[in-house]
Amino acid sequence: MARLRAEDNVQFVTVNGADSTVCSVLDRGLQFGDGLFETMLCVSGTPVDFAEHWVRLAEGCRRLGIDCPAIQRDVTAAVARQGAPKAVAKLIVTRGSTERGYRCVPSVRPNWILTITDAPEHPLAHGNEGVAVKLCRTRVSLDDPQLAGLKHLNRLPQVLARREWDTEYHDGLLADHGGRIVEGCTSNLFLVAQGTLRTPDLTACGVRGIVRQKVLDHSIALGIPCEVTTLGLREIERAEEVFLTNSVYGIVPVSAIEDMRYRLGPMTMRLMKDLCRDVYY
Amino acid sequence: MARLRAEDNVQFVTVNGADSTVCSVLDRGLQFGDGLFETMLCVSGTPVDFAEHWVRLAEGCRRLGIDCPAIQRDVTAAVARQGAPKAVAKLIVTRGSTERGYRCVPSVRPNWILTITDAPEHPLAHGNEGVAVKLCRTRVSLDDPQLAGLKHLNRLPQVLARREWDTEYHDGLLADHGGRIVEGCTSNLFLVAQGTLRTPDLTACGVRGIVRQKVLDHSIALGIPCEVTTLGLREIERAEEVFLTNSVYGIVPVSAIEDMRYRLGPMTMRLMKDLCRDVYY
Repeated sequence: MARLRAEDNVQFVTVNGADSTVCSVLDRGLQFGDGLFETMLCVSGTPVDFAEHWVRLAEGCRRLGIDCPAIQRDVTAAVARQGAPKAVAKLIVTRGSTERGYRCVPSVRPNWILTITDAPEHPLAHGNEGVAVKLCRTRVSLDDPQLAGLKHLNRLPQVLARREWDTEYHDGLLADHGGRIVEGCTSNLFLVAQGTLRTPDLTACGVRGIVRQKVLDHSIALGIPCEVTTLGLREIERAEEVFLTNSVYGIVPVSAIEDMRYRLGPMTMRLMKDLCRDVYY
Repeated sequence: MARLRAEDNVQFVTVNGADSTVCSVLDRGLQFGDGLFETMLCVSGTPVDFAEHWVRLAEGCRRLGIDCPAIQRDVTAAVARQGAPKAVAKLIVTRGSTERGYRCVPSVRPNWILTITDAPEHPLAHGNEGVAVKLCRTRVSLDDPQLAGLKHLNRLPQVLARREWDTEYHDGLLADHGGRIVEGCTSNLFLVAQGTLRTPDLTACGVRGIVRQKVLDHSIALGIPCEVTTLGLREIERAEEVFLTNSVYGIVPVSAIEDMRYRLGPMTMRLMKDLCRDVYY
């Protein structure tokens, strides 16, 4: 682990199941961002929603034409061996290593990299009082439809957006080129207005989050009206409750988007209680 | 070099100037495509148009907020040491290695990877008769304006486009979401019609190629009317001459785009003679 010295919070790394912290410089993940990733909270040695993460990864591999490696047991076994009360597992799958150039021979074998790190601290106040969120200037990329919704490794817009603040915000919202709000830099967005739950349509761009889908499924089961739709600044201004979802913290209420203020309301509290308690906090 | 065994055409690799063929799995180039690259033809131990490549790399670093490493001499010295009559040098610069997440501390140090490979064979017939080009279904990403024109590492659209053919085409043309032709998968596009040279406007997306700029500069100096403009299928159908540019082969005439046929015309021949002879072939 000497090479990861700068990263004190890394507990475990494996590359293709071997004890390694490096990958070939010819890996197409490095060369082109030619791969996918999943980030999973692990509780007491078990990845939360592993089946859902796996389905998304496999679907992403299918769409990119990557031969998804059958490493479910390797991942869960590695997480179990670590066994920390809380940790975060990040799994990267790339198309593999090839010669220079975009062309890829059919025989290429995918590479996978599993990193297990300490779970970030989420102060109790986040859940009780909510977090502050920025409106980013950086726009999400409008990808080819083949890439829409995937958690792929082409993440420069998120990198640039994250450079717009330091620690003064919990996350930043990204809009598309038409000004439609798409997602947070590391999260999906939900608004509540007049009893209806609304979240941006991700048909054209954005990442389809696992917790986002759980919130939608659970809300529909509860009979809560849900809209997956176009959301702009006006809808954000008029929202009564706002929350973010991601796989590391579940649901976090938003207390402010720039100078717009929100209260922690009953819908957010209900969903946090139903979906997050005893898992994420 | 054992790890690069599959890649017989690799002559030389260095990571940050050290004798290495691997990078940390925490490198942000792998994690997010957070970096840039340059691909340069090297002739008799000298990279062609090195100054222009360096200016583009430095400008890309400036725009992404990467502290561009002052490695010009390392690169030219490595190329000189190889000294092959023809080779291709690919230089990747990433933001460096950080902890999990998009956030980046100011102290992060960039990583650079230089790979020198054999130059691909470009059959004489390519220059004499022209090459066949595909119209790809895959669309280029409409990036944030901060990324437009840069040769960054988020290249999934090109990866997917390149999967649309095997060896039956020399390159494929990519359009944006509005159907405007932007560029080749690995090249820039030029059309000639009624004495005017036309190439797609790359303000919103696409890579601003070094040879593209040389063709424009030289043509303007010769008094050839040039247009950097919107080009669609209609303009391609009506073109009298078509050629592609890139830094490995310079200029290559196009004989066919799908079932549209073109002849090798006087403007293409003139530019090939002025800009490419004794350099690229």
